[in-house]
Amino acid sequence: MQFPLQVLVWNEGQHEKRNKTVQQIYPHGICAPLVESLRAQGYAHTQMVTLDDPDQGLSEATLAQTDVLVWWGHVAHDQVRDEFVDRVQRRVLEGMGLVVLHSGHHAKIFRRLMGTTCSLRWREDGLHERLWVVDPGHPIADGLPPYFEIPQDEMYGEHFDIPTPDAVVLISWFAGGEVFRSGCCFHRGRGKIFYFRPGHETFPVYYQKEVQQVIANGVRWAAPGKGPAFVYSGGETLHAAALEPYQAG
Amino acid sequence: MQFPLQVLVWNEGQHEKRNKTVQQIYPHGICAPLVESLRAQGYAHTQMVTLDDPDQGLSEATLAQTDVLVWWGHVAHDQVRDEFVDRVQRRVLEGMGLVVLHSGHHAKIFRRLMGTTCSLRWREDGLHERLWVVDPGHPIADGLPPYFEIPQDEMYGEHFDIPTPDAVVLISWFAGGEVFRSGCCFHRGRGKIFYFRPGHETFPVYYQKEVQQVIANGVRWAAPGKGPAFVYSGGETLHAAALEPYQAG
Amino acid sequence: MQFPLQVLVWNEGQHEKRNKTVQQIYPHGICAPLVESLRAQGYAHTQMVTLDDPDQGLSEATLAQTDVLVWWGHVAHDQVRDEFVDRVQRRVLEGMGLVVLHSGHHAKIFRRLMGTTCSLRWREDGLHERLWVVDPGHPIADGLPPYFEIPQDEMYGEHFDIPTPDAVVLISWFAGGEVFRSGCCFHRGRGKIFYFRPGHETFPVYYQKEVQQVIANGVRWAAPGKGPAFVYSGGETLHAAALEPYQAG
Amino acid sequence: MQFPLQVLVWNEGQHEKRNKTVQQIYPHGICAPLVESLRAQGYAHTQMVTLDDPDQGLSEATLAQTDVLVWWGHVAHDQVRDEFVDRVQRRVLEGMGLVVLHSGHHAKIFRRLMGTTCSLRWREDGLHERLWVVDPGHPIADGLPPYFEIPQDEMYGEHFDIPTPDAVVLISWFAGGEVFRSGCCFHRGRGKIFYFRPGHETFPVYYQKEVQQVIANGVRWAAPGKGPAFVYSGGETLHAAALEPYQAG
Repeated sequence: MQFPLQVLVWNEGQHEKRNKTVQQIYPHGICAPLVESLRAQGYAHTQMVTLDDPDQGLSEATLAQTDVLVWWGHVAHDQVRDEFVDRVQRRVLEGMGLVVLHSGHHAKIFRRLMGTTCSLRWREDGLHERLWVVDPGHPIADGLPPYFEIPQDEMYGEHFDIPTPDAVVLISWFAGGEVFRSGCCFHRGRGKIFYFRPGHETFPVYYQKEVQQVIANGVRWAAPGKGPAFVYSGGETLHAAALEPYQAG
Repeated sequence: MQFPLQVLVWNEGQHEKRNKTVQQIYPHGICAPLVESLRAQGYAHTQMVTLDDPDQGLSEATLAQTDVLVWWGHVAHDQVRDEFVDRVQRRVLEGMGLVVLHSGHHAKIFRRLMGTTCSLRWREDGLHERLWVVDPGHPIADGLPPYFEIPQDEMYGEHFDIPTPDAVVLISWFAGGEVFRSGCCFHRGRGKIFYFRPGHETFPVYYQKEVQQVIANGVRWAAPGKGPAFVYSGGETLHAAALEPYQAG
Repeated sequence: MQFPLQVLVWNEGQHEKRNKTVQQIYPHGICAPLVESLRAQGYAHTQMVTLDDPDQGLSEATLAQTDVLVWWGHVAHDQVRDEFVDRVQRRVLEGMGLVVLHSGHHAKIFRRLMGTTCSLRWREDGLHERLWVVDPGHPIADGLPPYFEIPQDEMYGEHFDIPTPDAVVLISWFAGGEVFRSGCCFHRGRGKIFYFRPGHETFPVYYQKEVQQVIANGVRWAAPGKGPAFVYSGGETLHAAALEPYQAG
Repeated sequence: MQFPLQVLVWNEGQHEKRNKTVQQIYPHGICAPLVESLRAQGYAHTQMVTLDDPDQGLSEATLAQTDVLVWWGHVAHDQVRDEFVDRVQRRVLEGMGLVVLHSGHHAKIFRRLMGTTCSLRWREDGLHERLWVVDPGHPIADGLPPYFEIPQDEMYGEHFDIPTPDAVVLISWFAGGEVFRSGCCFHRGRGKIFYFRPGHETFPVYYQKEVQQVIANGVRWAAPGKGPAFVYSGGETLHAAALEPYQAG
């Protein structure tokens, strides 16, 4: 089955230029296995861009035709230009889906949309993680076992400073003693946002089948709907003129 | 596009036997226009049953192959046998979708799944209702305008004694001064439940296009997922034996 | 500071009659340390009843003057009479608070109010549990550290088959590899319900300070409010007569 | 009863300087009746500041000792300095309560904390509004009737572009055909935020008893808790050093 969605994977692409471990694990970029997996799962129109691309990969034209944006960033959050963050935010509120991965929790765009610090506790210990499904009826749980494991990953621990999610699909257990809300759904405007925790750059997490399944499920769930677009009052700070009331049909 | 879902419409079917107004508006049953509309919208495998059918239309075999159950009841809630209510509840928790319409708010199965009285305030005034979309990114809002109107309907007003919904998609405005959470989503076990308010037996509400659209959207949203089935501890009241811990893959 | 709340602790009281370990740990009943702690924390009007009391401790008169009911049951869920379950449910929907502890997840009253099986996975391994605060602004987190530990307890693991809670305050980590939503809040009617996981009968969990703190916080949070009581439509299955519309003041 | 809370009412204070109608209705400022009412209801330590005060009334020292900030703004949202918005946001995430009134929906601080446009539809028609309680067990509903009316007010209509609230306590009905989620609760970090809709500058809404009651309830609900403060990882964009794991007690 093929889905006509246009998926854009924003892969920061900085670790790959400097770090040999990362280069060995992910020779074509951290998100390259995800691009491949999304295409294999039916999302044929999946493209990858990086921070080094023109307009940081986030031109008006590119975003205008993107249905779901997948975001991985880590060391260069600050370099993403504010005008592009504005642009992505606007597109999400208009209906574009957003899937934020791992260290993207501190990306400007995620923090902008959440309104909180999105901070968390972390430890690079390479111990194993076990992710439990806690909402088995949610579409993002499709095809998953009751839990799955990631043999080695960075730990992220609570408290995760996000707004109460609209749905929590996965909770992680870490060998070192922490828990984490690892699969979180949010509605913002007409857009849907899915945050998914796994994915450190020095572990081959994005080659793992269950991880790829969750991300594909997240893309499908976050796909734009066909709900109504609203005409809001014009002024941002002052209501400048009376809006016509809607007329009954 | 055709959806392979098996949809079962449970249409109480009592008003139709006694009330001439209802017979004139709905000569083939209150839910007949919905069955037709669901088939026209791609749900080819839609069947209708009534309280008067063998096993009240709710045999084990029928339910076993039902993906989404649509429920309309009003004057005969008490006649639905408790063992069938148990059966439907079990199927919902296993993953079958449930779409509850209008006066079904007081159906045994809805109250069972909600845990509250599901009572509300009402008035049969035949004034008009306006339904506003308040979650435009939700799949149940697909294809809807910012609001739509029902020229004549029974009024249902808050407080509606239900648990906090997982999502509220529609809120009604009534000419007589009331508001109502008219489109409410709930996850229960692996199943999804959608309550939709409109649909009185003495007004031709189920011939209206937007109403039919919402119900088709609800059926699609409530369709069973492919999330994991869990093995819970055995005993209902006493834990009889230690469960084997899951083994890491 | 003294709170005028009337707190009723329903302590099943069956393990205590048969099991020497339980008798040694809890010579005056499993919930006796909680009663003492609640009184010490200002809830002077705290009483304890058991299944063996007249009316199973749940007479109309007793419940009528109870503000918050704390419930601990395990081996005798089935013996609680259905009419008393009805009575407690009615009182909760009217506004009485309910704090359900540990194995009370399978109590008739909790399952009635949730509408699901409330099943879970469990293992009596006596390993340690770590409870993380995930909603630090919630009143039930008052006075707690970022996490606290219970040296030995029974394990309860996800999936916990409950409706999506209105708030999740605590998530547990278990040494054996599981996680659990251990502190969950629900609004039902005018009443508030708090489920709190710890408390096995063969470990001295209810002597622990943090556990006592959470339970006292839960009692405070679940205390009846002064919100409006609604007059709903009369009939349970048939709307018998038009209700007078509310008149504007 | 006296509450020791420090309440700061931020009253923009611009309409009052220019508009005779506003001056006549609110000779001491739009929020002056609220300050009086809060004091009368036990919040003795309530102070009012305006945009024209030093540091726009939002100095570090003032905010440091504020427990709950009540915010009314309309024509001068853009004049509030971004550094003060940062400051207020930080204080809310640390635990300070925030009650946002009416046209404050477009205040920088509210939009910052929500992550959405917070836009809505509106009409200055002076028709009446009816507010229905839809969560009668919520503390913000304390002392309210099933509904109350505001004889004349500006209309605000859905869709209100906010994140799904953690609780919706009030829904408004407007004579012109709109509905609105008028009493919305949000948890952000350790802080709690309450948005309350009524309050236009050209109608004497803030003299009305029920309105004053809701605002006092909101202040009480949003008061800082005593939950744990977390130590998050240090870096905002790059994790600079491993954090010590918490040690079990």
